[in-house]
Amino acid sequence: MLEISEIFNAAAVLKNVARRTSIIPAPKLRPGCEIFLKTENLQLTGSFKLRGAYYKISQLTDEEKKHGVIACSAGNHAQGVALGASHNGIKSLICLPAGAPISKIEATKGYGAEVCLVPGVYDDAYAKAMELQKEHGYTFVHPFDDPKVIAGQGTIGLEILDQMPDVQQVIVPIGGGGLISGVAFAIKTLRPDVKVYGVQATGAPSMAQSLKDGKICHLNNVSTIADGIAVKEPGVNTFDMCGKYVDEVVTVSDDETAAAILALIEQQKLVAEGAGAVAVAAAMFGKVPVEGVKTVCLVSGGNIDVNTLSRVITRGLNKSGRNYTFIIDLADKPGQLSGVCSVIGQRGGNIISVTHERINSSAEINGCTIRVELETRDMKHIEDIRKALSEASYKVLN
Amino acid sequence: MLEISEIFNAAAVLKNVARRTSIIPAPKLRPGCEIFLKTENLQLTGSFKLRGAYYKISQLTDEEKKHGVIACSAGNHAQGVALGASHNGIKSLICLPAGAPISKIEATKGYGAEVCLVPGVYDDAYAKAMELQKEHGYTFVHPFDDPKVIAGQGTIGLEILDQMPDVQQVIVPIGGGGLISGVAFAIKTLRPDVKVYGVQATGAPSMAQSLKDGKICHLNNVSTIADGIAVKEPGVNTFDMCGKYVDEVVTVSDDETAAAILALIEQQKLVAEGAGAVAVAAAMFGKVPVEGVKTVCLVSGGNIDVNTLSRVITRGLNKSGRNYTFIIDLADKPGQLSGVCSVIGQRGGNIISVTHERINSSAEINGCTIRVELETRDMKHIEDIRKALSEASYKVLN
Repeated sequence: MLEISEIFNAAAVLKNVARRTSIIPAPKLRPGCEIFLKTENLQLTGSFKLRGAYYKISQLTDEEKKHGVIACSAGNHAQGVALGASHNGIKSLICLPAGAPISKIEATKGYGAEVCLVPGVYDDAYAKAMELQKEHGYTFVHPFDDPKVIAGQGTIGLEILDQMPDVQQVIVPIGGGGLISGVAFAIKTLRPDVKVYGVQATGAPSMAQSLKDGKICHLNNVSTIADGIAVKEPGVNTFDMCGKYVDEVVTVSDDETAAAILALIEQQKLVAEGAGAVAVAAAMFGKVPVEGVKTVCLVSGGNIDVNTLSRVITRGLNKSGRNYTFIIDLADKPGQLSGVCSVIGQRGGNIISVTHERINSSAEINGCTIRVELETRDMKHIEDIRKALSEASYKVLN
Repeated sequence: MLEISEIFNAAAVLKNVARRTSIIPAPKLRPGCEIFLKTENLQLTGSFKLRGAYYKISQLTDEEKKHGVIACSAGNHAQGVALGASHNGIKSLICLPAGAPISKIEATKGYGAEVCLVPGVYDDAYAKAMELQKEHGYTFVHPFDDPKVIAGQGTIGLEILDQMPDVQQVIVPIGGGGLISGVAFAIKTLRPDVKVYGVQATGAPSMAQSLKDGKICHLNNVSTIADGIAVKEPGVNTFDMCGKYVDEVVTVSDDETAAAILALIEQQKLVAEGAGAVAVAAAMFGKVPVEGVKTVCLVSGGNIDVNTLSRVITRGLNKSGRNYTFIIDLADKPGQLSGVCSVIGQRGGNIISVTHERINSSAEINGCTIRVELETRDMKHIEDIRKALSEASYKVLN
């Protein structure tokens, strides 16, 4: 049973280890609303996970410390455990599925862990970690369902109350539930008037479903771009604590999460991973009532793969009319492409790629089809260019 | 002549207006070095410009305030003036070249300015602003060469000394020189032992050249992705102050700046614009000696166009082997493309686009060429896939 004194103790232990991350105003995310961001994406290791892992490790007995720790994770928890162990001067071993992104493996090694690559998927890596733990007497650091880990994450709740005493509600991402259990416990103990909302991805609603059913549910499949919260089953401790301390759990779609990632980049100059952006998505899209309520969204992490980030941006650009591909039928004779480019250039469209095809069922037999990808200003700009192309007698197919 | 008391006065005026932005550790930018970031990209309006503009406007006489202010800018200065004027309850008019990005125009309007779109380029907008100023008695807010503006920017120097008393050097971007003049003046007055370096783009080295020549130089052409510091000529005040208070001015290339933008995203979860990243580039690429010296890089702004950001990321991905396009000659018969995709999939490459061409001078007459764009892990992964394709007898052309 967690006591509030343990969270204060964790805060003291973490004092010169974890950053006291800023709370930043986000006035444009939902106009007219007072929304603020607790920026744990700017935490060391790029996520809040350092807090719980470090505190857990710091509380081991000398005997346990001698044997070192083991964890199984391809993500933020691995980096938290690695750095937490290094700072405490003990050995850490992280089991990862062999297909894990090189960047994550390198980051984990960079924080001082030994890495064990296990063929197969996460479950295989987990089995291997259990086997190694028994064999060598390592302590297993659970990513969420451990009271010490929960106490470490709870320090974020203390910081929010201290940094913004007039906060009225806090919105927190939920994967396994370790973060929100700690934050909600701290806040409800000290300030029961402050509301705490949880957010999951619609493709991985294990805690939401479990709370609804009144018992722990296991999801067979989870799928979301917010991979950091793609958890099939909540923990025993976290399920219990969420039932007691969380006001409501809502879900957001991947499209909403992607829009939140893009908004954080454009409006806030912050990079969030999918899991890190779901609380913002919940506020932006009204999943949690934010009008007239001073709200802190917890941005839990920023470790997004750059390829994924690039795709999120591209999709956002398409959706907001700042990127468009025209498909145009042309007579196959000299000067046609130059004519199209000239019309587009005069209207201020910036061509970034051209594909030219001669075989296409819809084209005339002596014609061809081109695809011209442009940077545009907005939907209206696209329509201006479309109109100019039509007026110049080019046949736009889309 | 600027007095240090004026910078303290500016700090008092800005107290509840500008954010006291965090200084964040950046341990991986240059391994083994103590580098920190002063995050003015997280300032309201997305850049430091708010400070100088707000302070300047706050110091106008009642008579001047009644007439309102005018500025000419397509960038951060416009947003700073707009918000500064709104907060002071006075009218602002911003002249912009008509081709300015919609997003910048909307942001400027969003902060409460009236916008005047002037056909032509920046110089035309400037001429129009001068004309309107004379006609209506507005006060012109210069983007950099004004002692009040410089005093406002200088508050960043005070904050750095207060937040990190053991700082040994500060690296600051230079466009017109307003930011570094204020910061260097504050630092050298209070702590002459702290070094101050300036950074310009190699494509726009107006201050570097002027200091070298001992007189103000005018560059006819400037070209850099760091558009916020693409300034043709330093100011009279800023040239004088840089000569007195700045230890050295260095330059960085656009490729170095792009690498810094990507590193800030991946390692620091921060979005910087080109001008905002040049100080980081100077530290990363050893333009300023940082080994063994506690260094603060000023990240001056984060207002980067998302299309540009997307291109910087794509280029970075290509350069680091995380994205590659194979060009492959195929016999034009059923099953060929599927075979290629299968080899790539087995090796863990993630196909993101395929282009199939039948007419290509290098292909057999009954053959075709395909371009397959992949997400890859690193250079070695690309070579693994290349080898697997060759072993399966596919003819890779690149």
